[in-house]
Amino acid sequence: MAENGARPIRLGMVGGGTGAFIGYVHRIAARLDGDFQLVAGALSSRPEVAKESGKNLGLAEDRIYTSYEEMARAEAARPDGIEAVAIVTPNHMHVGPAKAFLEAGIHVICDKPLSNTLEDARALASVKPAKGAKFLLTHNYTGYPLMRQARELVKSGALGTIRVVQAEYPQDWLAEEAGEDNKQAAWRTDPARSGAGGAIGDIGTHAYNLARFVTGLKTEAVSADLTAFVPGRRVDDNVHIMLRFEGGARGMLWASQVAVGNENGLQLRVYGDKGGIEWRQDNPNQMWFTEFGKPKQLLTRGGAISGSAASAMNVRIPSGHPEGYLEAFATLYSQFAAVIRGEGADYEALLPTMADGVEGMQFIAASIKSSEADSKWVKLSDV
Amino acid sequence: MAENGARPIRLGMVGGGTGAFIGYVHRIAARLDGDFQLVAGALSSRPEVAKESGKNLGLAEDRIYTSYEEMARAEAARPDGIEAVAIVTPNHMHVGPAKAFLEAGIHVICDKPLSNTLEDARALASVKPAKGAKFLLTHNYTGYPLMRQARELVKSGALGTIRVVQAEYPQDWLAEEAGEDNKQAAWRTDPARSGAGGAIGDIGTHAYNLARFVTGLKTEAVSADLTAFVPGRRVDDNVHIMLRFEGGARGMLWASQVAVGNENGLQLRVYGDKGGIEWRQDNPNQMWFTEFGKPKQLLTRGGAISGSAASAMNVRIPSGHPEGYLEAFATLYSQFAAVIRGEGADYEALLPTMADGVEGMQFIAASIKSSEADSKWVKLSDV
Amino acid sequence: MAENGARPIRLGMVGGGTGAFIGYVHRIAARLDGDFQLVAGALSSRPEVAKESGKNLGLAEDRIYTSYEEMARAEAARPDGIEAVAIVTPNHMHVGPAKAFLEAGIHVICDKPLSNTLEDARALASVKPAKGAKFLLTHNYTGYPLMRQARELVKSGALGTIRVVQAEYPQDWLAEEAGEDNKQAAWRTDPARSGAGGAIGDIGTHAYNLARFVTGLKTEAVSADLTAFVPGRRVDDNVHIMLRFEGGARGMLWASQVAVGNENGLQLRVYGDKGGIEWRQDNPNQMWFTEFGKPKQLLTRGGAISGSAASAMNVRIPSGHPEGYLEAFATLYSQFAAVIRGEGADYEALLPTMADGVEGMQFIAASIKSSEADSKWVKLSDV
Amino acid sequence: MAENGARPIRLGMVGGGTGAFIGYVHRIAARLDGDFQLVAGALSSRPEVAKESGKNLGLAEDRIYTSYEEMARAEAARPDGIEAVAIVTPNHMHVGPAKAFLEAGIHVICDKPLSNTLEDARALASVKPAKGAKFLLTHNYTGYPLMRQARELVKSGALGTIRVVQAEYPQDWLAEEAGEDNKQAAWRTDPARSGAGGAIGDIGTHAYNLARFVTGLKTEAVSADLTAFVPGRRVDDNVHIMLRFEGGARGMLWASQVAVGNENGLQLRVYGDKGGIEWRQDNPNQMWFTEFGKPKQLLTRGGAISGSAASAMNVRIPSGHPEGYLEAFATLYSQFAAVIRGEGADYEALLPTMADGVEGMQFIAASIKSSEADSKWVKLSDV
Repeated sequence: MAENGARPIRLGMVGGGTGAFIGYVHRIAARLDGDFQLVAGALSSRPEVAKESGKNLGLAEDRIYTSYEEMARAEAARPDGIEAVAIVTPNHMHVGPAKAFLEAGIHVICDKPLSNTLEDARALASVKPAKGAKFLLTHNYTGYPLMRQARELVKSGALGTIRVVQAEYPQDWLAEEAGEDNKQAAWRTDPARSGAGGAIGDIGTHAYNLARFVTGLKTEAVSADLTAFVPGRRVDDNVHIMLRFEGGARGMLWASQVAVGNENGLQLRVYGDKGGIEWRQDNPNQMWFTEFGKPKQLLTRGGAISGSAASAMNVRIPSGHPEGYLEAFATLYSQFAAVIRGEGADYEALLPTMADGVEGMQFIAASIKSSEADSKWVKLSDV
Repeated sequence: MAENGARPIRLGMVGGGTGAFIGYVHRIAARLDGDFQLVAGALSSRPEVAKESGKNLGLAEDRIYTSYEEMARAEAARPDGIEAVAIVTPNHMHVGPAKAFLEAGIHVICDKPLSNTLEDARALASVKPAKGAKFLLTHNYTGYPLMRQARELVKSGALGTIRVVQAEYPQDWLAEEAGEDNKQAAWRTDPARSGAGGAIGDIGTHAYNLARFVTGLKTEAVSADLTAFVPGRRVDDNVHIMLRFEGGARGMLWASQVAVGNENGLQLRVYGDKGGIEWRQDNPNQMWFTEFGKPKQLLTRGGAISGSAASAMNVRIPSGHPEGYLEAFATLYSQFAAVIRGEGADYEALLPTMADGVEGMQFIAASIKSSEADSKWVKLSDV
Repeated sequence: MAENGARPIRLGMVGGGTGAFIGYVHRIAARLDGDFQLVAGALSSRPEVAKESGKNLGLAEDRIYTSYEEMARAEAARPDGIEAVAIVTPNHMHVGPAKAFLEAGIHVICDKPLSNTLEDARALASVKPAKGAKFLLTHNYTGYPLMRQARELVKSGALGTIRVVQAEYPQDWLAEEAGEDNKQAAWRTDPARSGAGGAIGDIGTHAYNLARFVTGLKTEAVSADLTAFVPGRRVDDNVHIMLRFEGGARGMLWASQVAVGNENGLQLRVYGDKGGIEWRQDNPNQMWFTEFGKPKQLLTRGGAISGSAASAMNVRIPSGHPEGYLEAFATLYSQFAAVIRGEGADYEALLPTMADGVEGMQFIAASIKSSEADSKWVKLSDV
Repeated sequence: MAENGARPIRLGMVGGGTGAFIGYVHRIAARLDGDFQLVAGALSSRPEVAKESGKNLGLAEDRIYTSYEEMARAEAARPDGIEAVAIVTPNHMHVGPAKAFLEAGIHVICDKPLSNTLEDARALASVKPAKGAKFLLTHNYTGYPLMRQARELVKSGALGTIRVVQAEYPQDWLAEEAGEDNKQAAWRTDPARSGAGGAIGDIGTHAYNLARFVTGLKTEAVSADLTAFVPGRRVDDNVHIMLRFEGGARGMLWASQVAVGNENGLQLRVYGDKGGIEWRQDNPNQMWFTEFGKPKQLLTRGGAISGSAASAMNVRIPSGHPEGYLEAFATLYSQFAAVIRGEGADYEALLPTMADGVEGMQFIAASIKSSEADSKWVKLSDV
C-alpha cells in the first residue's frame, strides 16, 4: 500500500473531536497504511473542543477550523491545502460538509448513512463535484477480505443462482435507556440527529449494504416491522425486514440494539442453488463455504483458495494472524488513496459510492414506510 | 426412568416399516429408557412390507396387522393388548389412526405435525378419548434438557420481559429436485401427503413450537413469505415469517430446505430486557445465557446452574458427555410413560399436547394465508 | 442393528447397583438397539443393595445374586442362562468376575481399564475361555462414528505418514478434595480400588486407546510427569506424557482432573505429512479434516464423505441430528452382539479387545515407572 | 495514544527491505497510533535493495544506509537523528545492530528471539546503553488486551494457585520442504541464520514467553523432545516440552510447523485451584474464564469485566469490533513510545525486556540440551 514511494495525501477532518468514536477510527484507518496525513480539521462545532482536539492531533494552529465552510474555502485556496476530507459527524451533518468540499474540488470520505433523509441524500447526489473530486462512503465491512472473496465467489458462479440471503446485525448496548451523557447513544436515538431511523440507520444499513455488496442482487421491495422496545425511545431499536430481490431471491434482515448478549453480531449468509457462504464479523478471518453435497470448508483470510489477485491485495499479513475492523476500514482508505492517485482502477468497483449511499437511504425510507403501513411490501423504486 | 421396578408399557406402532426414518427413531426412543416394549404393529399399508417389518422387529405373527383399524379393534380386545401406540405415518395419515386408538382407549404418541389440514386437526381434537387415553405429540426438540432449562429461565424472570425471538431451521437436503425413489423427500414434497405446507410443516412447525415452548408467549399474528425455489416443487421449501406476540414481543422465523451447508441447523434465540439465551441443535449440550451487562455464560446440559429438579430429571449422564437427538426424543417417551402410570405430574406441563398440535396447524394455515395475501398480517385466531 | 429379527441376547451384570454411574450407562447401551435383555445380576457386594437394585431393574428374584461366583455357576447351568455379562465394578474388581464368566463360557463385556495392576491384566489374558466365549473392553470413545472414520482416513493414506499425535482428556471434577460420600470420586482416588494410577487410569487410558485406535501406531516409549495437585490425594490427578511411536511419530498426552472449566474435554489431533484431523468429544458429530494446502473441511457424522460401508453402519440417524456418548457406547454393544451371533466379521477389527486392555495397563505401568524415574523414557516392552 | 499532542518519535529501521514480512508488520505497528515516524533505514544488506526499499518508504536519500554501523553513527550525530530503531533482521543479525544503537544512545525495538545463541544474548544484555537508551523485545502476543487481562486475573488471585499451564503454537506452513526461493522459510530453517532451534526459536519462544507473561511463574526445568520431520531439515520443526515451574506448577508446550490444518494456532490455557482461562490467537477477542463450579464465561476484549484501567488502555475500539495481530503489535510500539517520553510508568511492567529475551534464549538452549540428552530434565539455571 503506501509503501510504494507515493507521497501521503493531505487529509482534513470534519467532526471527530475528543471523545468521538468514529472519528478516531477514521484517523487510525487513514494512518495505518501510511497513505494519508492529517493536516487540517473542523473537529467540533464547539470552538474550544475543536481547538483542543486539533492541538492534540498535532494540527497547525491556522488549520484548526471551527466551521467546515471556512475550512473548505481556506483549504481550497492553499497551495498545500487538503486533497481529501473525512466527514465523521452525526448523520444529519453529513450532507452540508460533503457538498461544500465536493464543490471545492476536494475528495470526500463520508461516514454512513449518507444523510438523515432521502431528500438530502438525493440533493447531495446531484451536486457536481469540482475538479473531478471523488466520493467514498465508509461502509467499512465491505473492506473485510473475506467479504470481498465472498463477492468474487458469487460472481464466479460458485454459489449458482442466489436464492436466500440472511443478514443480521444484533447488538445490545441500547437495551436500556441511555442518558444524554452517553454521547454515542444520545445522538443515535435522537431523530433530529440520526434521522427517522434508529437501529435501521445505524446498523441495519450496514447489514443491507453488505448483503448487496456480496450478492450483487438488486432489491425489489421490503416488508418491515420496526419496533422501539425501550420505553420512551423515539426511534426503532429492533428491525425485522423481509426482502425480495429482482430475479426471485428472498431475504431476511434483522438488526437490533436490544439483543442481550450480542456486541456487534453482524452476520451474512448467502445460499444459491450450488453453494452457500456464512460469515460473522466477530471472527472475520474465517468464512464457511459449502458446495452442495460436499463438506463445509472453512476459508481463511489469505488462506488456501483466497481468491483473485484483487482480493489478495486486501491482505496485509499471512493467514492465521487475525486482522480486524481497523484493517478493513483502512483498506477502504488505502484503496481510495490509490483511486485518488489514479492507480486504483481495480478497486473502483469495490468501494462504496454515492449511489450506494442513496440506495441505503431508500432502503431506510422504504422500510419505515412499510412498517408504518403494517408491513405492506414497499418497492425501493417507490420512495 | 424405567429402572424403578415398573413394568414396561406394551406399545404398538402404525407406520414405520422397513426403510422409514422416523419410525426407527421412535422405536429407539421407546427402548432407550426401558419404559416400553413393542408388541404389535401395522407397520405399512403394503401387507408384505408390514409382515416383513413386523418379523424383523420380533413381533408375534398374530400381532402384525395390515390395517390400523383392525389393530385398534384387536388390541383393545386382548387382555395383553397394547396400552399405547406410536403413529409414525406421513402427515395425512396421522388423524385416522389417532382417532381410532383414542376411541379404543389406547394412549397415542403421534408424530408432528398433527395432520395435513387444520380442519382435520380440529376434528381430531374434538374426539373423546375412551378410558382416559392420553395424547403425546412428539415435538422432540422440547425434550432437550437445555431447552427445558431455557423455559425455566424465562419463567424465573431471568430474561425479564421477552422482546425478541429469533427461530430458524435451515436444512439443505432438498436443495435439488429429489426423485420419487427418495422416499423421505417424495412424501414431504407431495401436498397430498404432507399437507399444503412443505418446509413450514416439516421443520417450520418444529422451530415455531420450540419458540412457544421456551418463551410461553402467545402468538398474535404472522406475516409470511413462502417460496418454492426448486423448479417444479409444489410446496414451499423456504419460509420467511415475521411474528407478533401478545404483549408486544416480536419475532422472526426462517425455515429452509435449500440453505446449502446446513444439515439441521435448528436455532433459537430469545432476548428479554434483562437477559438473552442462544441455542443450536447441532451442539445441543451447550446454551449461551447472558445477563445484561455481564459476560456471556456457556451453560451445559447438567452442568453448573442446571436448573430445577424438574430439568435435572431430564439428564441421564454427567455434563460433558454429549447427549443428542435420540435422548431428547426418548425423554418424551419416558416421561409420557410416567404420565400413563400416574407418576408424571411434574412432566405433564412439559409434554406437547393435542392443543399444541392444533396450534401448529393454525400456524401453518395462517402463514400460508398470509403468504397468499402478499404477506399481510394474519391472526392465528382468524384461521 | 437388533431390528433384523434376531432374538435379544440374555445379559447379566456384575456391579452397577443403584447410584452407580457406569452400570446405568451400560444398561442404556445394551437396550438402545434392542440387542440385549438384562435378566440377571450381581449388582452390588452389599446384599440389600443387590436385591433392591435387581428388583428395580425387573429381574426375577432367583436371578438376583449377591456373589458373581454364584451367578456364573448358576447361570451357566440354566438352559435360559445369560449368554453375556457386563462387568461394571471398580477397576480392582474386573479381573475376578471376568475370569469366572469366561471360564463358564459366558461372553464378557468389561469396563476399562482392564484391571488395577498389569500382573492381573496379564493373568486374565492367559485365561482360556470356555465354549469360545468372547471379550469386549468398553473403550466407548472408539464407538463414535467420526473416530471410526478417522481411522479409515488414516488407513486410506489420506493423512500420509503420521508424524504428530496430540491427545488430551481434561476434566475438572476432582479439582477439590472430594469426600467419601462422593462415591464416584472416592473409589477413583483410592489406589486400592482404582490401581496405582488416578487420572491416568480413569481417563488417560481412554485418550491413549483412542489415539492408538485411530492411528494404528505402535507405542515405543513414554516419558511421563504425573502429579497429584490436590493436597492429600494419593493418586495422580494430572498427567503429562510425551510419546514415541515406532516409525518415528511423536505424541503428547495430557489428562487432568483439575483443569477448571473442562467437563470431559477429550480431544484427538493427528497430523501426517499429507493431512490432519482434529476432533473433540464435546461436539462429537463434527471432525476437522485438512489436506495440506487446502481449506479445512468440517466432516459430520453421516454427512458428505462419510467413509466406507463399515463406518456407515455406525450411524443411526441422518447427519445434523446429533448423536452422543450413549450411542457410541451402544454401538460397541450392538456390534458385539453381532459378533456373538456370528454376523460381526466387519466389526471384529473395530472392537476393543483383551490385548487392548493389557496394552492399556502397560501404558499405565510404563508411565508410572517413567514418572518415578524423573521422566526417563520407558519402553512399553520393558514393563 | 498518539493523539495527545505529542510529537511522533523519529524511527529508523534495520532490515525490513522489500519482501520482508516482519519489517512490514513493524512499520504498520509504528504508524497505527501515530507515535512514530520512519525517517531512516538500513533496510537490506544488499545496497540496491536498501536504496529501492528506502525510496519506496519515502526516506530522504541521505538517510538510506547500507550498513547499520554507519547508520548508528550518522543518526546519532544528526540533530534530527532517529530517537529509536527497529531491528527486524533474521535472528543472527539482531545482536550487532542492537549493541550499536544502544551504545549510540538510541532506543532499540528488537524482534524476537533476541539472538541465535545464548552467549550472544548474554553479551548483549551486558551492554551499557548510552543516554538511558531503552530496549523493547517485540513479543507481540503480550500486546493482546485479553492476554493482559489474563495476567491481571492471575495476579488478582481469581485463578488461585496455578497448577497447570498448556501452551501451544501449531502451524503447518513448513510441512513440506521449502525451496530457497521461499525467503521466509529459507532463513528460518538455516541454523546459521535462525540459531540451533527451528520451530522452538521461531514460535516456541512466543508460546513460552506468553505463558510466562500471563502466569508470572518462574520456570525450573524443561524436558524436551525436538524433532525434524521433514527430510533433510537441519532444525527442529516439532517441539514437545514438559515444564516444571517453581512452586510446583506443571506445564506442556507444543510448537509445530508441520501440523497440517493449523495456520497460527497459538493457544494458552492456565488452570489454578480456583479457576481457569483459555485463549486462542485465531480469535483473540474472546477468552474463556471459569470459576470452579460455575459456568464458563466468555470474556471479550473491552467487554464486561474488562479489567483494570491499565488493561483498558490497550483497547482502541468497543468490544465486538475485532482487533487483531497488528493492533496488539502496535500496542507494544505505542506504549514503548510513552515509556520513551517518560509517560509510560504503567506500561513498563508489561513490555517485554532484555531479560525476557535472555530467558527466551535460555529456554531454547535448555530445551535443545534436554532433547539431546534423551529428554532429561534440564534446569534453566544450568545453561
